Amino acid sequence: MTRFEVLILGNSSATPMYGRHPTSQVLNFNEQFFLIDCGEGTQMQLLRYGIKGSRISHIFISHLHGDHYLGLVGLLSSQHLVGRQSELHLYGPSALKEILDLQFKHSDTRLRYPLIFHPTNAYRQEVIFENTQLQVTSFPLQHRIACTGFRFDEKPRSASLKKEEVERLNIPVPYRRLLKRGIDYVADDGTVYSAKDLTYAPPQPRSYAYCSDTVMNADYLGAIRGVDLLYHEATFLHDRIERAKETFHTTSLEAAQVAQAVNAKKLLLGHFSARYKDLQPLLDESRTIFPHTELSEEGKWFLV
Amino acid sequence: MTRFEVLILGNSSATPMYGRHPTSQVLNFNEQFFLIDCGEGTQMQLLRYGIKGSRISHIFISHLHGDHYLGLVGLLSSQHLVGRQSELHLYGPSALKEILDLQFKHSDTRLRYPLIFHPTNAYRQEVIFENTQLQVTSFPLQHRIACTGFRFDEKPRSASLKKEEVERLNIPVPYRRLLKRGIDYVADDGTVYSAKDLTYAPPQPRSYAYCSDTVMNADYLGAIRGVDLLYHEATFLHDRIERAKETFHTTSLEAAQVAQAVNAKKLLLGHFSARYKDLQPLLDESRTIFPHTELSEEGKWFLV
Repeated sequence: MTRFEVLILGNSSATPMYGRHPTSQVLNFNEQFFLIDCGEGTQMQLLRYGIKGSRISHIFISHLHGDHYLGLVGLLSSQHLVGRQSELHLYGPSALKEILDLQFKHSDTRLRYPLIFHPTNAYRQEVIFENTQLQVTSFPLQHRIACTGFRFDEKPRSASLKKEEVERLNIPVPYRRLLKRGIDYVADDGTVYSAKDLTYAPPQPRSYAYCSDTVMNADYLGAIRGVDLLYHEATFLHDRIERAKETFHTTSLEAAQVAQAVNAKKLLLGHFSARYKDLQPLLDESRTIFPHTELSEEGKWFLV
Repeated sequence: MTRFEVLILGNSSATPMYGRHPTSQVLNFNEQFFLIDCGEGTQMQLLRYGIKGSRISHIFISHLHGDHYLGLVGLLSSQHLVGRQSELHLYGPSALKEILDLQFKHSDTRLRYPLIFHPTNAYRQEVIFENTQLQVTSFPLQHRIACTGFRFDEKPRSASLKKEEVERLNIPVPYRRLLKRGIDYVADDGTVYSAKDLTYAPPQPRSYAYCSDTVMNADYLGAIRGVDLLYHEATFLHDRIERAKETFHTTSLEAAQVAQAVNAKKLLLGHFSARYKDLQPLLDESRTIFPHTELSEEGKWFLV
C-alpha cells in the first residue's frame, strides 16, 4: 500500500511550553514530502526526527500567526545554504510573499533554488495542487485573521487484474486496460466477461484534512467530510468554551463533534494551550464523543 | 560582587546542526537581563534554561541575517500573549523595525506592552544605553551586510570606607563621601588624612564584548580593547581561511589573534559552522595562541 502518513513536529499553540513546539507537520505521501505549517524551530525539529529539508517539495501555510510560519525563513535560508537546487512550492496567504521578500532583501539573500509561490484564497475552497496520485484542496476556516485548512486526497486508483484468469480466458491485451477501468469485455462470440469478476477492487482512496486554527462552525464541514484522518486544533478544554470563542479557537469536545459530524475515521488533536501541562484531559474529553481520538504527539507518525 | 555573566543559548552558525541552535545569549548584569541576538528558537531555549522572558528588559540585535534575529517575532509575540506590561527596549538595524511592523500587521498583533525601538548605526561607534551601573556601546563590524558588535562596560564604582578607622578618627560625615571619591580630608588642625589610607579600592570595572559575525580586521580592535571576556565568532578552522574571507567570517586562530591583540582576559568562541560536529579542534587551534579560550557551550554561564 502506498505510504500515506503524517509526522507531528509541533503541537503547541502560540506560547510554546513544556518542550512542545509551535505547529508543523510533515506529510509523507508515497515518499513525496509535504510540510504543513512551519512554526518557529521547524528546521531543528526536522533534523531531530531525521527528515531532510531537501526532500520537502511543497509547503502549505495556513495563516500568518507567527506560531504557524515563523520557522519558514530559517528553513528556506538553510536550504539555500546547503545548496538545494530543486524547486520548492510554497502555498500561503499572499502577504507571506511580501514578508519573505522583505526579509530576504535585508539579509541580502538570493535563493539559489526556485521558490514558487502560490497564494491561497481564504474565502473559497479550491484545488491548489494536483498530480497523478494526490490532490490538495484549501478551504476557509474562521479564525481571527484569514486562515485556510488543507485537505489531501489520494486519487482513486484503477483495479488490478486477476492475471491468471485473464490469461486463461485469453483476453486481448488492449482490453485488459479497459477491464481495470471497470469496462466489461465482450468477446467476438458475444460472451460478456464482467470487469468485476476479472479484477480486484482498488483500495479505497484515503484522505487527510488539516484544520489549523478555527472556531467551530458549519461552513467548513463540507470540505472535510468523510476523511480518514482529521487533524483538528483543540486549544482548550470545553470548560473554557468562552475563551475559545473569544480567541477563535476550538475545544477538544468541539473537535470531537466536528469529527463525528463529518464522519471522520480518526481524529488527531493538536495546538494545545500552554495552560495544559498534562494533555490527557483533552484526550479524555474528546473520546467521550469520538472514541477514535489521538493526541498529536511530537515525533510520532500517524497513518492516514 | 555584582553578578555579571553570560548564558549561551545558541552557538551555531546559519545552518543549525547536531542539536546546536542559532546565535543568542543572555547577559545577567546585577539581575538586569539583556538578550544579545535572538536566533530562531530563542524563546524555547530561554524556557529550557529557566530564564523568564519577562525578565528581559533590553534586546540587542547585531544584524539582519536570519540566524541572529528570526526568534524575535516569536519572543515578542509570546511576551504579548503572557501579558507582559513592562517596557522592552530593542536595539538593532533600522530595517528590523520595518520587518517587525509588517509581521505584526499581517498577524493583526498590537503589542500590549511598550516596545521601544532604538536603531543602531553600523558605521560608527556609539553609546546606545547607559544607567548608573552599566554602559553599552555598539561598534561596526565588517560582515556581508551591516553588522554591529556590542560592548558592555560596568561603570567604575566608588571606593568603600574603612569604617572603623573613619569612626575612630571621628571624620565628619559629609567628608566621608568625599573620601570615597578619593578626596583627602584636612582636619581643622591641618592634619591630612589620605583617602587612600581610609578606603578600600573599588573592584576593577569589568567588561564584556560581543563580536557576532565579522571578518577579522583592525578597525574594531579599538572598540574591544582590554575587555575581560571577549565573545568572538569562530566559524571555521584556519585551514578554511579563504572560505572565511569569502563569507565574511573568522577562523578560530584569528579570533585568538584578536583576543591577544586587544589584551582580553578570556576568549569565548562561537558561531560554529555545521561542518564541525566535534568542536575540540576549534578550541585547540585558538589555544595555540590564546590559552584562555573556551567554547561557548549552550546552557552554560560564563563569568565576565
